[in-house]
Amino acid sequence: MSDFVSRLCPPSVGERMYTLAAELYPICRSITGNGVRQTLDIIERMTPLARSEVPTGTPVLDWTVPKEWNITDAYVKNAAGERVVDFRRHSLHVLNYSTPIRATLPLSELKQNIFTLPDQPDLIPYRTSYYAERWGFCMSHNALQALPEGEYEVCIDSTLSDGRLTYAEHVHPGESEEEVLLCAHTCHPSLANDNCSGMALLAHLAAAMAPLKTRYTYRFLFAPGTIGAITWLARNEHGAAKRVKHGLVLSCVGEAGGPTYKRTRRGDAPIDRIMARALRQDAPQANIIDFFPYGYDERQYNSPGFNLDVGLFQRSQFATFPEYHTSGDNMDFIKPEHLEASLRIVAQAIDALEHDVRYVNTAPQGEPQLGRRGLYAAIGGDKDAYASNMAMLWILNLSDGEHSLADIAERANIPIAQVEATATLLKEKGLLADAP
Amino acid sequence: MSDFVSRLCPPSVGERMYTLAAELYPICRSITGNGVRQTLDIIERMTPLARSEVPTGTPVLDWTVPKEWNITDAYVKNAAGERVVDFRRHSLHVLNYSTPIRATLPLSELKQNIFTLPDQPDLIPYRTSYYAERWGFCMSHNALQALPEGEYEVCIDSTLSDGRLTYAEHVHPGESEEEVLLCAHTCHPSLANDNCSGMALLAHLAAAMAPLKTRYTYRFLFAPGTIGAITWLARNEHGAAKRVKHGLVLSCVGEAGGPTYKRTRRGDAPIDRIMARALRQDAPQANIIDFFPYGYDERQYNSPGFNLDVGLFQRSQFATFPEYHTSGDNMDFIKPEHLEASLRIVAQAIDALEHDVRYVNTAPQGEPQLGRRGLYAAIGGDKDAYASNMAMLWILNLSDGEHSLADIAERANIPIAQVEATATLLKEKGLLADAP
Amino acid sequence: MSDFVSRLCPPSVGERMYTLAAELYPICRSITGNGVRQTLDIIERMTPLARSEVPTGTPVLDWTVPKEWNITDAYVKNAAGERVVDFRRHSLHVLNYSTPIRATLPLSELKQNIFTLPDQPDLIPYRTSYYAERWGFCMSHNALQALPEGEYEVCIDSTLSDGRLTYAEHVHPGESEEEVLLCAHTCHPSLANDNCSGMALLAHLAAAMAPLKTRYTYRFLFAPGTIGAITWLARNEHGAAKRVKHGLVLSCVGEAGGPTYKRTRRGDAPIDRIMARALRQDAPQANIIDFFPYGYDERQYNSPGFNLDVGLFQRSQFATFPEYHTSGDNMDFIKPEHLEASLRIVAQAIDALEHDVRYVNTAPQGEPQLGRRGLYAAIGGDKDAYASNMAMLWILNLSDGEHSLADIAERANIPIAQVEATATLLKEKGLLADAP
Repeated sequence: MSDFVSRLCPPSVGERMYTLAAELYPICRSITGNGVRQTLDIIERMTPLARSEVPTGTPVLDWTVPKEWNITDAYVKNAAGERVVDFRRHSLHVLNYSTPIRATLPLSELKQNIFTLPDQPDLIPYRTSYYAERWGFCMSHNALQALPEGEYEVCIDSTLSDGRLTYAEHVHPGESEEEVLLCAHTCHPSLANDNCSGMALLAHLAAAMAPLKTRYTYRFLFAPGTIGAITWLARNEHGAAKRVKHGLVLSCVGEAGGPTYKRTRRGDAPIDRIMARALRQDAPQANIIDFFPYGYDERQYNSPGFNLDVGLFQRSQFATFPEYHTSGDNMDFIKPEHLEASLRIVAQAIDALEHDVRYVNTAPQGEPQLGRRGLYAAIGGDKDAYASNMAMLWILNLSDGEHSLADIAERANIPIAQVEATATLLKEKGLLADAP
Repeated sequence: MSDFVSRLCPPSVGERMYTLAAELYPICRSITGNGVRQTLDIIERMTPLARSEVPTGTPVLDWTVPKEWNITDAYVKNAAGERVVDFRRHSLHVLNYSTPIRATLPLSELKQNIFTLPDQPDLIPYRTSYYAERWGFCMSHNALQALPEGEYEVCIDSTLSDGRLTYAEHVHPGESEEEVLLCAHTCHPSLANDNCSGMALLAHLAAAMAPLKTRYTYRFLFAPGTIGAITWLARNEHGAAKRVKHGLVLSCVGEAGGPTYKRTRRGDAPIDRIMARALRQDAPQANIIDFFPYGYDERQYNSPGFNLDVGLFQRSQFATFPEYHTSGDNMDFIKPEHLEASLRIVAQAIDALEHDVRYVNTAPQGEPQLGRRGLYAAIGGDKDAYASNMAMLWILNLSDGEHSLADIAERANIPIAQVEATATLLKEKGLLADAP
Repeated sequence: MSDFVSRLCPPSVGERMYTLAAELYPICRSITGNGVRQTLDIIERMTPLARSEVPTGTPVLDWTVPKEWNITDAYVKNAAGERVVDFRRHSLHVLNYSTPIRATLPLSELKQNIFTLPDQPDLIPYRTSYYAERWGFCMSHNALQALPEGEYEVCIDSTLSDGRLTYAEHVHPGESEEEVLLCAHTCHPSLANDNCSGMALLAHLAAAMAPLKTRYTYRFLFAPGTIGAITWLARNEHGAAKRVKHGLVLSCVGEAGGPTYKRTRRGDAPIDRIMARALRQDAPQANIIDFFPYGYDERQYNSPGFNLDVGLFQRSQFATFPEYHTSGDNMDFIKPEHLEASLRIVAQAIDALEHDVRYVNTAPQGEPQLGRRGLYAAIGGDKDAYASNMAMLWILNLSDGEHSLADIAERANIPIAQVEATATLLKEKGLLADAP
């Protein structure tokens, strides 16, 4: 593990990411509203954030920023006045973006607005209705089955009205204006893996990177899924979006499965090669899958009008684990060690991106005389000299402006750290210059 | 099976193709002459044909239209006056294009003009001598062996003189002037698979397509092998040949083997991908082989000076089955069900060609808001929404002008019919436009 | 074996190459000095050579021509005055480029300047010190162990002073100015495989080629390793080096292992394809390995500033056999039959290069009428006609200016000799013309 990777993954970071995720877990987030703001308040204790508040009705690409949704309470009470469904106990109990309601209804009518999972009868489903105005509750199928006939008092104390969509960014400036975009979606309510885990990882990564010098500029984006990414793209179309060279969407990075890397749309981007290398090294059991236009915000970044090289990193692939989008995705489902393993893979990819530089050999005709510069084992013919000189020879041979250090490491089958250390030495000796 | 494919393959079409092939079978065809005209008369009952009659001596590319050959009778009589070889019993008994002869010869001299198959002693071989003038008979080896020594009367009542080469076309006009060329050779005498089967398939396909609207213009070409294709190319060099975008040669499509698809010269033409898909779906045991410059008229269409994307579709590959070019290739060798299976594959390829269009996403930045247009399942988070929205998302993501609907179906692993129906819907909603 | 190959590999050439290698073996060569000149004197009996003598201190690319080294005698004498190490018995006994010394030393001090191979205790190692001035002896570990304590008289009667670096070339002019560069290093002392074998092969090849007409110009380069190639490149940078289209470095071509072909830097050069074909045909057990920037002078030719398509041909790969760079690499280690097998592979590659021509079909539309030109089996339908016509058809089909005869042989899976003979026939008949 390189020093750079070690600094991005400080001791006990797994536990600390878990603690942060646990603090974020109970909040009822959505694509707008105070849940997102409260989430950003907590993250801001780790890393400075520049917040954007975009008014309802703002046109963003093909979309329009929706009304802002907020909720203070919601319940279903039985004839005895007992809360048989209670939003205060779990934020999933309310259909996300539910319109307000206050009524007394017979069970049969109430059922038309209740979502359950008959195949997973103990779990509360996660359901949303962002763009069709309706009200609803989610609950476990068993609990619904246990309700006796009768009248029920329902209350959803929510508001859906003109307001703002909130997202936040932290920019870590590097030597270059070229950017690496790292994103986590902030819109899901009490789902630990999806995506308290991603937000916690991104926050800790931003904090750990703060004191470090980097080549690339890193943009940490905390935004609601789909509409948040679309809003960011709309507002940065002619600016930051043009500077994005590589990117990763981080979601569901806390449980035991996978890990999974989903390639960019073009499938052979540098981030694709770099993630494949990082996974090969750290997690040989990893699944590397081709792009498909469903999932998280990689869909937006990889749309044909932007075509940004942004991949998706997860542990189990979304929608493949039974806890997905249910109350089973809770704080028991994720573990500090999986969060830490995920961070380490991302840190290794960043390390590789940082070192994926191209040099040109300044003495490209023939081999430069290494011995004259004290770079070559003095006694020729020694069989041991072979290994010790290969890194130099490979770098000099392939530094023609077309091969990056990562490409050279790959082709020469030499660890990237050795390639990088050797390149630094050759640059000091004047044999390498930055590629134009 | 799409509606289009169903209409190209109407009920009991296998039996009807077989019946047509049976009617064509006894005729003594050659590269010129009345056998071809009689064949076209029969085919014309299925589909209108535009005939071409090209005079002997006409220069065609590197070739010249040969003399016209006709034959009324031929036999070998023994001393008792019995026909021991009788053209009236099998058209293969005469060397195709044999010059006339009337003579009495001892067996030893006769034998110099007799072709047999010693390894298949019961079968009559098929032999031709188009460009070297000579006479000859073909017969089974056993029958030859049984002939006693003695004098034999030989008679070939043929003519070889200035006349015309005959071929015929049916053009099914489509929305576009771009053409799909479908060809069957008409020059082989009584050989059921080679090529009564191909002519019968082509005739029925033309008839079934007549009432249908198509995007491409389809040209059904019935012409003698080699010299017929060369004559057509010579006469259409600056016209129809320039409009041919895809094509198939159909021969030997009636027996149980294969099926076999032989790729175009460039090997990755759209017709190659489309035939591979049609075969994968319908006949996983199919052989898909690379182009080589021998076989049927794909040789001429794929010559470097034309380089048309014309593949060859057969069941068993030519020259690989023992009945090939013998009297074993008779009406027992082919079957209605194989004819029908062949037609279905060709129909599926045509269906795919028809739908192999390219669109551009009119809202390429980010995903368009499907929900606003009534295109998206309204309740997010429902696991079932995944499958139902994927076709839309794939089409929108890949409709960048570089991917056709068939490409998208391939990459997304979604049936082409679903891709096409979805694309029609997206076009209606203004989200797709024709690619420039 | 084509006639051209036969003439490059005359009868008993294996024995004659072996005899030449044996004559070169005892000489103490180095990167400069009279050993190289004496070597060239012997080679010059086989083939005329143009010698270059480049003064010490001449700048060559990133390097400088070093002082010239010569040696007349060297020994270690024991107290009894007996030579316990004697340069006259083996040229490896002296550290190559050793500075002169004359001294009497105790064994302990002497040992600091003695190189042995403890793991191969019977063998003398080969060691050099070209760019660090020091003195030293090489001997078997057993012999060293046997030396009793005491004083030893050491004498190295060498000179290291301003002089010249010597290399030599023979140019075989061809129809074209484009060159094929064939090189053998001349700097190793008494090592039979490395590289008396390569020099002997190159000398005999030059002699055998002398009476033959070739399309390419062939340059046979006898030069010391590294500094010799660098000096040649520096002096020919704007001349011959620009004309090199293909090349081979020949070293270690006399023992039983391999054979091995190491590709050029770009990996898909014509010489790479041609050597792969030659090896597939002659030595299916061959190792074909990717370029890496270590080995012989292919390193210099494939440096990014020249990037010449020069591969390396050997039997066992260098440094993989125990005799490598030891006194075990002697005249028993190499054999006439291996030298001959190596020559044959090189000759076949040259044959393929010579015939790797591109033609254009002069009748590219459809197939030309072969029968009219007496090129086609007259009786169509004969199953045997298939094989005999395929070479013609393939050549005509692929001679579009983009495919060379070697490409056609590869794609059609027909021996290159048959392709070439057929192409000659087609050219005579006017059906092929030289590609522009």
